[in-house]
Amino acid sequence: MKTLIVYAHPEPDSLNGSLKDLAVSTLEKAGHEVRVSDLYAMGWKAVVDAPDYGPHASSPLQVARDSGRAFDAGTLTPDVLAEQAKLLWADTIVFQFPLWWYTMPAILKGWVDRVFTYRFAYGVGEHSDTRYGERFGEGTLAGRRALLSVTVGGPEPHYGARGINGPIDDLLFPIHHGILYYPGIEVLPPFVLYGADRLTGAGYPDVAAAWEQRLLTLESTEPIAFRRQNFGDYEIPSLHLKRGLEPAGRTGFALHVRG
Amino acid sequence: MKTLIVYAHPEPDSLNGSLKDLAVSTLEKAGHEVRVSDLYAMGWKAVVDAPDYGPHASSPLQVARDSGRAFDAGTLTPDVLAEQAKLLWADTIVFQFPLWWYTMPAILKGWVDRVFTYRFAYGVGEHSDTRYGERFGEGTLAGRRALLSVTVGGPEPHYGARGINGPIDDLLFPIHHGILYYPGIEVLPPFVLYGADRLTGAGYPDVAAAWEQRLLTLESTEPIAFRRQNFGDYEIPSLHLKRGLEPAGRTGFALHVRG
Repeated sequence: MKTLIVYAHPEPDSLNGSLKDLAVSTLEKAGHEVRVSDLYAMGWKAVVDAPDYGPHASSPLQVARDSGRAFDAGTLTPDVLAEQAKLLWADTIVFQFPLWWYTMPAILKGWVDRVFTYRFAYGVGEHSDTRYGERFGEGTLAGRRALLSVTVGGPEPHYGARGINGPIDDLLFPIHHGILYYPGIEVLPPFVLYGADRLTGAGYPDVAAAWEQRLLTLESTEPIAFRRQNFGDYEIPSLHLKRGLEPAGRTGFALHVRG
Repeated sequence: MKTLIVYAHPEPDSLNGSLKDLAVSTLEKAGHEVRVSDLYAMGWKAVVDAPDYGPHASSPLQVARDSGRAFDAGTLTPDVLAEQAKLLWADTIVFQFPLWWYTMPAILKGWVDRVFTYRFAYGVGEHSDTRYGERFGEGTLAGRRALLSVTVGGPEPHYGARGINGPIDDLLFPIHHGILYYPGIEVLPPFVLYGADRLTGAGYPDVAAAWEQRLLTLESTEPIAFRRQNFGDYEIPSLHLKRGLEPAGRTGFALHVRG
């Protein structure tokens, strides 16, 4: 495997830092190639603005159009070009981050906002009576697999089917489906570490063993069975799931998972 | 009303900029006080790091603990203190932003990550057999109301009950419930402008009229009926919704809305 690890935590000597280090050593020991985007260490610029699109950005700025034009012209900033190149190099992408306010830290959202430009991650492919662009199962990053490794402060029951925070699968759906599956990446079930704030040194070896086990079985893990957009499950252009495809009683985000 | 508008778009001459300007003029004309946090114009720092917590940040950095200590000591950075003061001043908070990758832009997530510190927005209140801290209906920001005004590129059907992106209420739930209701803010139904990328000058007056109408009825709008945590609906400490409270067949995020 060629694995890109995108890592977002301000403290190297943290649980997230340890899990990232363990991922690097475990994968390398198993003979895989690994590259790391350590967003804090890189001083990653989190904020989309006009300088991202060079001296030819339009005025007024139009984020989608300008990012697509800079992508086509090869004039995106070097930091963004480097991340796009890493994504094209990788066959596997691991994201390591703490869940802050039920989603990713701002620095990682800023990596998505800036790297996933128009014409690279969206605005790809043709629209017709049977296709609505290349996305949700097709796209620039098709053929790759991704895994979220997430630390969560609260205990697992709070994220269960009846838990007050909502089900973890639903909380992660906008990332899994909306960010990763959109440009074509297959998404593996996440590695979620609950109760991270209360984890002690004595508890860490079990966590490390579970994480190593996930890392060493990435290639044989089945991805989440998200439905592909252009292969008959959806009406076009409404992109409504066709009636009767889902098991009785299923609603919400889970409609977009097969079986 | 005392309204704080938190606005996140890089281009003043944008649809989001126009909707923000219209909110200011409409509310002021109606006799309300308005303050604006224009995150791009302020050069808002989006990224949580050790300097946020001053020279006494612990090493290794512990984000929750250090942010709570700095909050208690009054040593948070001036930019964060100013935003916390604005939130305490306001009775109404309007967020104006484009939906980027199914959630808020990084600069706004960074406003949440840095302003919603421990002891201010979380880590508030006592834990006992009947209470699990002051959150979800109680907390520092109780008594306030918030509204998301969101522009969305895609058309409305894509965000419907069977739409490929998932229902808009579910996409916004982690913000509505997880970020705003958590520290006690009541949340009004959002103002969502679909098809924003295709909006023409000819279409704008209708949008402006609808937005003005929402702004002028903020005080009489019923908030989303999220369930309060400590008033009998949840088991403590599992925070599972008690059996039988929901209408038959309701699941997922919607469990946490009454009626």
